[in-house]
Amino acid sequence: MAIPVLRPLSTIAYNTIRLNGSVHKANKLVEKGGEDAFFVSSHGGGVIAVADGVSGWAEKDVNPALFSCELMANASSVVAMLETNGILKIASVGDCGVRVIRKGQIIFSTSPQEHYFDCPYQLSSEAIGQTFLDATVTSVELMEEDTVVMGSDGLFDNVFDREIISIVSSCDKVSDAAKALANLAYNHSKDSSFESPYSQEARTQGFDVPWWKKIMGMKLTGRTSSD
Amino acid sequence: MAIPVLRPLSTIAYNTIRLNGSVHKANKLVEKGGEDAFFVSSHGGGVIAVADGVSGWAEKDVNPALFSCELMANASSVVAMLETNGILKIASVGDCGVRVIRKGQIIFSTSPQEHYFDCPYQLSSEAIGQTFLDATVTSVELMEEDTVVMGSDGLFDNVFDREIISIVSSCDKVSDAAKALANLAYNHSKDSSFESPYSQEARTQGFDVPWWKKIMGMKLTGRTSSD
Repeated sequence: MAIPVLRPLSTIAYNTIRLNGSVHKANKLVEKGGEDAFFVSSHGGGVIAVADGVSGWAEKDVNPALFSCELMANASSVVAMLETNGILKIASVGDCGVRVIRKGQIIFSTSPQEHYFDCPYQLSSEAIGQTFLDATVTSVELMEEDTVVMGSDGLFDNVFDREIISIVSSCDKVSDAAKALANLAYNHSKDSSFESPYSQEARTQGFDVPWWKKIMGMKLTGRTSSD
Repeated sequence: MAIPVLRPLSTIAYNTIRLNGSVHKANKLVEKGGEDAFFVSSHGGGVIAVADGVSGWAEKDVNPALFSCELMANASSVVAMLETNGILKIASVGDCGVRVIRKGQIIFSTSPQEHYFDCPYQLSSEAIGQTFLDATVTSVELMEEDTVVMGSDGLFDNVFDREIISIVSSCDKVSDAAKALANLAYNHSKDSSFESPYSQEARTQGFDVPWWKKIMGMKLTGRTSSD
């Protein structure tokens, strides 16, 4: 079997837009280059990883991008390694995720881990955080022409799976699909009328946005500072 | 590592209630004992499987339970085998599914395969059906005290994941959890005011129930005869 091509998706430049509340805060983070980090390696059949930054640190004048960049040197929120036999092995802690698209549908999806709504599992240098022992380890046998989409919650909280399928199916080039997905996540995060996966989940769990906030154009598009 | 306990869930007696439209048809199927089949084996670390019957066959006076029972002898819609190293390996064709619950949350979930809405992949003796080559093969490393829930669309179309978690968490005995899940699926399928996972997905895909049908207590609770 030919080894499928891994298609890493970076949301570095866009993920921070999901931050709710203060536009100032979001802009500040954008100036820092975003709060996520990723890497791509050709080791074995290929390795891709995404780490989601901890936005709460930005309030303490800590650059969350540095945190996640450092994290990538030790452990990551989600790592996928393609073995030479075509099996994609995935280790995940928290709410970064992977989708595998085959023939126009998602045939594999990771499940996010969280302590409660909006409080995902997090690898941390502090004792209260999670470690690699908390990782969910899964695998999926890839087939030729499968597409693997990896991203942080910045993607999956703002873009529905059906939209991811649609974009991936309509783009010939990997880079075009990645840009289109990041742009869609960005646009959805700014669209106060858009019911995102995140806002739908919030409502399901009883965390709805008050009506007066909706009138003011405020909505649940991203994380709180406890991200 | 101790080998986790596999907890098979049978929806045999309840799944047919999901059939939409004719109560007569549903009752007829219940008299035949349902349209699903399952098996449990102690091979290796344990094997569990569920096959979803093809309800369309009932209209041709073919007992769909026999079909799926026969299917179990050859291939199944979903089969999960627990290897002695604690890895649960899953092969799935169609919309039967597996959930793995760990510490009160779903850490693994299969993704259904379908040609289009309400038309799942199906193993079949006919040339137009799918074969084992179409199976999605995934695996997940289990930990002690994980709970594995396997079922047909009769469960997952009528019961939300959060309800599955709630029931599994509240039951000490496996058999109690299985019964409670089956009862909930049955009750939801009869409750015309309940927005099931299936009816929500139908609406998302543009297949909503006309208002006059809602007034008459009709709703999308289950499959059409093309199931």
